[in-house]
Amino acid sequence: MTTTIRTSLVEALASIVGSRFAGQVEDPSTLLDAAGPLSQPPRADAWVRPKTPGEVAGVLAWCYERGVAVTPRGGATGLSGGAVPLSGGVVIALDRLTRVGGVDHRRWLLDVGAGVTTAHVHRLARENGLNFPPDPGAAEQSQIGGNIATNAGGPHALKYGATRAWVTGIEAVLAPGELVRLGAPVRKDSSELDLKSLLVGSEGTLGIITGALVRLTPAPEERVGGLALFADARAGATAVGDLLASGVLPAAVEYFDAATLALVAATCPVELPTGTAFGLLIEVDGRAGEAAREWREVEDALAGSSSAVLRAGTAGELQRLWDWRHSFPGVVMTLRGGFRSGDVVVPVDQLADALQRTGEIGREYGLRTCSFGHGGDGNLHPAFMIDPRDAGEIERAHRAADALADMALELGGTVSGEHGIGSLKARFMARQCSPAVLRAQAAVRLALDPKLLLNPGKKVLPAPEARGDPIPSIAS
Amino acid sequence: MTTTIRTSLVEALASIVGSRFAGQVEDPSTLLDAAGPLSQPPRADAWVRPKTPGEVAGVLAWCYERGVAVTPRGGATGLSGGAVPLSGGVVIALDRLTRVGGVDHRRWLLDVGAGVTTAHVHRLARENGLNFPPDPGAAEQSQIGGNIATNAGGPHALKYGATRAWVTGIEAVLAPGELVRLGAPVRKDSSELDLKSLLVGSEGTLGIITGALVRLTPAPEERVGGLALFADARAGATAVGDLLASGVLPAAVEYFDAATLALVAATCPVELPTGTAFGLLIEVDGRAGEAAREWREVEDALAGSSSAVLRAGTAGELQRLWDWRHSFPGVVMTLRGGFRSGDVVVPVDQLADALQRTGEIGREYGLRTCSFGHGGDGNLHPAFMIDPRDAGEIERAHRAADALADMALELGGTVSGEHGIGSLKARFMARQCSPAVLRAQAAVRLALDPKLLLNPGKKVLPAPEARGDPIPSIAS
Repeated sequence: MTTTIRTSLVEALASIVGSRFAGQVEDPSTLLDAAGPLSQPPRADAWVRPKTPGEVAGVLAWCYERGVAVTPRGGATGLSGGAVPLSGGVVIALDRLTRVGGVDHRRWLLDVGAGVTTAHVHRLARENGLNFPPDPGAAEQSQIGGNIATNAGGPHALKYGATRAWVTGIEAVLAPGELVRLGAPVRKDSSELDLKSLLVGSEGTLGIITGALVRLTPAPEERVGGLALFADARAGATAVGDLLASGVLPAAVEYFDAATLALVAATCPVELPTGTAFGLLIEVDGRAGEAAREWREVEDALAGSSSAVLRAGTAGELQRLWDWRHSFPGVVMTLRGGFRSGDVVVPVDQLADALQRTGEIGREYGLRTCSFGHGGDGNLHPAFMIDPRDAGEIERAHRAADALADMALELGGTVSGEHGIGSLKARFMARQCSPAVLRAQAAVRLALDPKLLLNPGKKVLPAPEARGDPIPSIAS
Repeated sequence: MTTTIRTSLVEALASIVGSRFAGQVEDPSTLLDAAGPLSQPPRADAWVRPKTPGEVAGVLAWCYERGVAVTPRGGATGLSGGAVPLSGGVVIALDRLTRVGGVDHRRWLLDVGAGVTTAHVHRLARENGLNFPPDPGAAEQSQIGGNIATNAGGPHALKYGATRAWVTGIEAVLAPGELVRLGAPVRKDSSELDLKSLLVGSEGTLGIITGALVRLTPAPEERVGGLALFADARAGATAVGDLLASGVLPAAVEYFDAATLALVAATCPVELPTGTAFGLLIEVDGRAGEAAREWREVEDALAGSSSAVLRAGTAGELQRLWDWRHSFPGVVMTLRGGFRSGDVVVPVDQLADALQRTGEIGREYGLRTCSFGHGGDGNLHPAFMIDPRDAGEIERAHRAADALADMALELGGTVSGEHGIGSLKARFMARQCSPAVLRAQAAVRLALDPKLLLNPGKKVLPAPEARGDPIPSIAS
């Protein structure tokens, strides 16, 4: 885009949102997300920070009419490059959409703008004695709009489901610039085609989510948790499947392998038995008395396979175990300066095989590897540790991630459990989906974005023959 | 369609499915559904009963290439005309798709063909100590594929959600005749655009569902239930909202008004206090001991508002209450020979107003009216009683149903809680949805059915300007 065109673009955006909230992108590298540099560098001409859904509609209408690509951006905590602009045009930051409509206590609904942070949603729920269960990792930075756009998960998705299960309504701007409301504040609905569910997890390719009506639930009266430890990874991973097959549904079953333990055992708040090769952080919750009973069932189910089951004696002790668990990515990062984080999901009875094959993949590509994640969901987050200055290691990590995706598909799983596809995994979709499913997804995308200007290059890539106009040259 | 063309159509279908399983439609009136005659009479040229998903794909491919409309048909227990052909062409009956893949006990999944009856899914779950919660009214006749296509509900949707919540995977034939699998046997997924959720409730307009991977859950160890009775309808309806707002979530809260009681009080298995003007059938379930505790919470919550809370002393007594509840539609039918059944949903705190206004609508149109349904979900099924030979009454019942839809929308609800849109309610969509939402729905429909041959005239009607070819003249 020439300087002149770019200047007039910014002027047009400023006329919609005010001059303080629109500008040229001077350094596109500031527009990465938590995944860090990817093979395609960020590219954008302008940024805009609308304050209202109406302003978002105005910006999209202006851009759509002129063939300018737009990339919606929430907290940029994603790990798949979903919020990173690749095709020039305008980055629409949604952080000023911070409307909070108050908790509706009779309907247990909360009306929030897309830019409200996940942690603030949690606080609003908690202050009202309620709970918003989705708990993705970067809740202080991530925004609820982005959580919805990626169907974000977190440890407690095991019992409560991921974000899609907690969205009753969506407010969004659709191409060519129309504000819509999808869903209704009712408990049951068989009327419209379910565009609301379709928009959840669509990563900005079908519309720009500007707000949501999220569902809350009474906070559990009691939480009980602790560690289950195993001398053998296969025994531990198999025990996860056995536990769930027995009918016990904990709120969370987080796993960590021996390679993870080698890095974090020293900071574990409880002393780990020697010979521990695999561990689980398990939490159960429910009404008073029920959680304690369920914890005993967990202990019974794991008695034969584990070397120890250690119950946290107090809420504070349980919280320290969670703090320890949340420290894992940071510790892993420090070892070699960086890591390529995996996110695949397999049927939970395939967890043991998936862990074994992850280790084999790491060895094959010469990468130090550890794995921790959401065991009960079969959602693995292997970490291939790399020196971020070593191009060879980065390349090997990319190939290892490819092998990981193939492994998940072979075991009957999918290439993303909760981080989404973004640009990082877009090429995997052709492995996961049959040509007919790819065509159907591309057709739906084109139906809602006929000019392919909404977050181009992400999620499902329309087949060349299905594609309309290419991204126009104004964004060159 | 001329006789010659029709003969060659049947010959072509017979070559795909065998001559016993294809034929001409001699009497289209046999192709109504449980809603009975609607303003548009059924129209179809041929029927076909494929045995395999591959045969369904073959039939759709043949029809799609030649511009022949198709109407998928399950158990035809729908109440909105969704399975009734309106545009000629071929009715694809799915009753022979009765594959049962067996219960996967480690994943709690059941792989079934679309033609398996809902009751058989329930039996398969029960025989394995498990539960498939969706329980629409006509479970012995309705087929799981149709339940998915309409996102069917039932009394226990209150606690467990409607059918969408229990579908892990869908097998479907998409235009122009491609067999696809959507979803995966995993607990969590953020990969593909969620076409699976979109197909649930799409009523055959986006594809033909040929099978599903449905999710099961451990059967509750204990059920406790009974009747709560009120001297005043508003007090009873308000109590439903209060009960749910208090944090108690029963498995089912069914309501019945005074006009219903006037018809069914005589057959009630327990003696009703004189002056009862409103009642609830409430069931709670859970682990042993929990249900009894929750029932006490129900009693406490209703103590101030109800005239009596009568607990069923045994499982048999509770079952008799359910049998009584399920008798209501039949009893109402006998009074005047027919009734127009409503299905609207409102926020549960609007239930009292919705009931009052339903009575006003009945009086305005001179129709004897009663109302019973799923109170906890705010899902009303008012019955406008009619003599099915009286054209004037039928017309007034249609207008009353119109007023009912407007009332639900004014109270913040939608025009269908669980029966779907079909052709009966298709005209209401333009009242419920903004023009932009209607356009988006039509665009998605056209994307997956560019020739508009899949169940034409149902659900969302593409705007004329968005429509491609009209239904071709072969189906005239």
